[in-house]
Amino acid sequence: MKMRIIDSYRWQEDIIKPFSKELGTTEEELKEILIKRLDMSSLEAIHPRFESSKHYCIKERVHADLRLCWLCDVMNILSEEKTEQIKNKIAEEILTQGKSYEKAIEDGRKDLLEYLMR
Amino acid sequence: MKMRIIDSYRWQEDIIKPFSKELGTTEEELKEILIKRLDMSSLEAIHPRFESSKHYCIKERVHADLRLCWLCDVMNILSEEKTEQIKNKIAEEILTQGKSYEKAIEDGRKDLLEYLMR
Repeated sequence: MKMRIIDSYRWQEDIIKPFSKELGTTEEELKEILIKRLDMSSLEAIHPRFESSKHYCIKERVHADLRLCWLCDVMNILSEEKTEQIKNKIAEEILTQGKSYEKAIEDGRKDLLEYLMR
Repeated sequence: MKMRIIDSYRWQEDIIKPFSKELGTTEEELKEILIKRLDMSSLEAIHPRFESSKHYCIKERVHADLRLCWLCDVMNILSEEKTEQIKNKIAEEILTQGKSYEKAIEDGRKDLLEYLMR
C-alpha cells in the first residue's frame, strides 16, 4: 500500500525525482527511506506538506547561501525587512517563474552586492 | 579610523579574507561595504560577534545544505534531537578540528543517508 502511494505519478514527479536529487541519493534509496520511516498516514500527509513548505524551505536555503545569517543577524548590515524582501523575491522567481535555484541565487547575489555597495 | 580597524591583521585574517570569499566578492569591495554601512562602534563590535556567531551560522548552512528543513521540519523523518546532533557534529569538525566546510558536509551527508537507511 505504501509503495502504491509512492509510485504514483504525482509523487514521482513532485517528490521522489526532485528530492532524491537534492539529497544526493537515488530514487530507489529515497523510496526505501520513506517506506521504512513513515507509516501510512504520515506518508499520505507528506505530499501537501511538501508543496506548501517549498516557499519556506527555499527561503532557508537562500538565507544560508547568501550568508544572510552574517549580513543580517550578526553584522546588521542588512535590515530584516530587506532580508525578507530579497528572500521572497528569489523564492518567487523559482516557484512562480520557473527559474532554476542556481540562476535565481546567482542573480540574487548580484542584486545583493549591488544593494550593499550603494 | 574605520579603515585602521578593518586593515588590522586580525580583521584581515578573521573576517575580510574568509568572508569576502563566502560572499563572492573582493576584499576591497567588502571593506567598502563595511565602511559605508557601519559606524565606528558597530564596527568595533563586529569582530567578537563574528567569532561567537560562527557555530550558529554554520549550523544554519548545514540545515540548508543537508535539506534538514524537509527531512526534519516537513517530513518528520528525522527527530529534532537527531538533527541538532548532526549539525553540532559538523560544526564541531569545522570549528575545532579544522575540517573544511565542503569535506565536513560531504561526510555529514554520507552519515545522514546511512542513518536514514538503517
